[in-house]
Amino acid sequence: MQEMLVATSRPGIISFALGLPAGELFPTTALTAAAERVLSTKPAALNYHPPLQSLKQHVRELMKQRGVDCREEQIFLTAGAQQGMSLLARLLLEPGGSVITEDLIYPGFQQILQPFQPQVLTVSTDAETGMDVDAVERHLRGGARPSFIYSITDGHNPLSVRLDAAKRARLVELAERYNVPIVEDDAYGFLCYGNPLPPLRAFSDASVFYVGSFSKILAPALRAGWLVVPEELILPLSVIKEAMDIDAAPFTQHVVNAYLETAQLPAQIEMLRTEYRVKRDLMLRVLAENFPGEARWAKPDGGFFVWVELPPAVDVDEVFRRALEVEHVAFIPGYAFSANNKRPRSTGIRINFSHPPAARIEEGIPRLARALKAVIR
Amino acid sequence: MQEMLVATSRPGIISFALGLPAGELFPTTALTAAAERVLSTKPAALNYHPPLQSLKQHVRELMKQRGVDCREEQIFLTAGAQQGMSLLARLLLEPGGSVITEDLIYPGFQQILQPFQPQVLTVSTDAETGMDVDAVERHLRGGARPSFIYSITDGHNPLSVRLDAAKRARLVELAERYNVPIVEDDAYGFLCYGNPLPPLRAFSDASVFYVGSFSKILAPALRAGWLVVPEELILPLSVIKEAMDIDAAPFTQHVVNAYLETAQLPAQIEMLRTEYRVKRDLMLRVLAENFPGEARWAKPDGGFFVWVELPPAVDVDEVFRRALEVEHVAFIPGYAFSANNKRPRSTGIRINFSHPPAARIEEGIPRLARALKAVIR
Repeated sequence: MQEMLVATSRPGIISFALGLPAGELFPTTALTAAAERVLSTKPAALNYHPPLQSLKQHVRELMKQRGVDCREEQIFLTAGAQQGMSLLARLLLEPGGSVITEDLIYPGFQQILQPFQPQVLTVSTDAETGMDVDAVERHLRGGARPSFIYSITDGHNPLSVRLDAAKRARLVELAERYNVPIVEDDAYGFLCYGNPLPPLRAFSDASVFYVGSFSKILAPALRAGWLVVPEELILPLSVIKEAMDIDAAPFTQHVVNAYLETAQLPAQIEMLRTEYRVKRDLMLRVLAENFPGEARWAKPDGGFFVWVELPPAVDVDEVFRRALEVEHVAFIPGYAFSANNKRPRSTGIRINFSHPPAARIEEGIPRLARALKAVIR
Repeated sequence: MQEMLVATSRPGIISFALGLPAGELFPTTALTAAAERVLSTKPAALNYHPPLQSLKQHVRELMKQRGVDCREEQIFLTAGAQQGMSLLARLLLEPGGSVITEDLIYPGFQQILQPFQPQVLTVSTDAETGMDVDAVERHLRGGARPSFIYSITDGHNPLSVRLDAAKRARLVELAERYNVPIVEDDAYGFLCYGNPLPPLRAFSDASVFYVGSFSKILAPALRAGWLVVPEELILPLSVIKEAMDIDAAPFTQHVVNAYLETAQLPAQIEMLRTEYRVKRDLMLRVLAENFPGEARWAKPDGGFFVWVELPPAVDVDEVFRRALEVEHVAFIPGYAFSANNKRPRSTGIRINFSHPPAARIEEGIPRLARALKAVIR
């Protein structure tokens, strides 16, 4: 993966490989003003300082917009979603334990699991309705008692699907019945391009440990995120974070807090939804105009990616190489997201639409289509 | 410890308990200008961005001021010293392994060790010359092969001693002979109030893994630090950090970099040395004027603390309670720093001089002396 990413970042390459937000959409002016306000009015913001209570209040309001009613005492502030999930894994996973995940998931989560060497019980993902909840039930009914179930409920990375409403209720019901918590990765949850569905956390206080992030709705380099967990987990999480990087409020937590005080975030999120929806629609149009009929994809309801299934006979590595070397365009082969190497290799590919400017989408996708057609024929 | 800290932060308490830098000495104006410069000229600074090469160049220059010649390829950027040590522990420690530390050390390091449950081989610390290097040699000659030796070479926390020059050379020689690395915690290393000695890293590229931090010389909430390690450890460290909180440049790394570009740090460090030296001298004078003759302390060459040894018969808990409840003044009892509960309980106490304003030192130390005298008599 690392080698692939280095290759895709070479100059002259049009990259649809990474999952970066569009920098030109960041509220840079408002964040500058927020930073200035913090530095001129809160001298303690540069020193060791307890995690910001006022930021927890703002997160509580934000969670209401997501359909979740939680208490400040259930909110734990993190340096982003990756740290949030890393802390939860450290809290929940025992050496030799097991987890349930989908076959294809965010690789950063696999990196978190790796040192614990858990048994990874995988289930497949339906392109329309998301995680195979029947398969989750079969694992649990068969006696599996994993440390948790990992769910990317909305804006799935890499599959760009969302769990449908009926499956949400059933998955939470299973978690409660078998007393197995769900780690809900909602990094993309606020970026829904249709009618949003409530996350799993809206169905259960006790069984769903929610992972939130400001990276996609404000800016990743602020390294600010949060967890919503049962209150009794806050102290153990603080102990783990204290050892990891000290559980104090970094300067950027004050900046995010000062930005949220201006009440501009709801409009910012609306703007992002509109702009990313426009990019998604452009990507879908250019794909339809250029990709061969044998390729299949669904319209993503949220997130940053389109997942394209290539015909089973296609050698994805060959497409990747030809795209990179001949057409100078990059994507990520789907098998790179595999949490279970025993499954047949995916012939899907992940294409990012959030980061490249419109002109690069219009220029790069026809080139990628040429590489694909050259390999198919 | 946590309960103690809560008690010491009650309103109305004069606290010498924590180890905070003095906020009024932060270069707030220059940092504000640096943040503005970054936000107006580097839009990519708010997005995912590789660790900053230019910051590594600045760290290399900074290490030269510390007497260390290293290469950029040996520098790994962290979110502070705590994260740096946490990463090194994760890299070096095997479950069931062992480490060598002094009896009394920074509790944050003990929190890092705790989940690994290593065998902690402790050695004592001489009040004048630092770590008992003979005892380290006895462990190694006796067959111990710890994952590493932990050394707070300068500005020892909590003991406020520094390792003398002869012991530095000997400790590194032992590390090389027995092929056991040293983790050198240099969080306070730049704050030397006399003639600085070169850190252990100046004696060995291969055997000393150096932990640096901007927390004490710039501001803690920037969460910026670094490691200097053999080049082959950079990639494994990056893999561990990637899982922990993503190995990308946070916004504050750009801010620190922009501040360092203005070349104001050397003067800032000089100013800090002067101001903290003045505070140290004030603390020593007020201690001498008020503390009973049975108490003993040395003049610290660096760091943020004075370590006061009380007579062996004194009940430190009783002093702590009386100081807090009757005199409304706080410190940390030395036994709270113990890495080895089997050793006899320390009757030292740690008193911070970096954070309280001069007037609070002049007011609080006589009160602490009263509590101490009441317990002694």
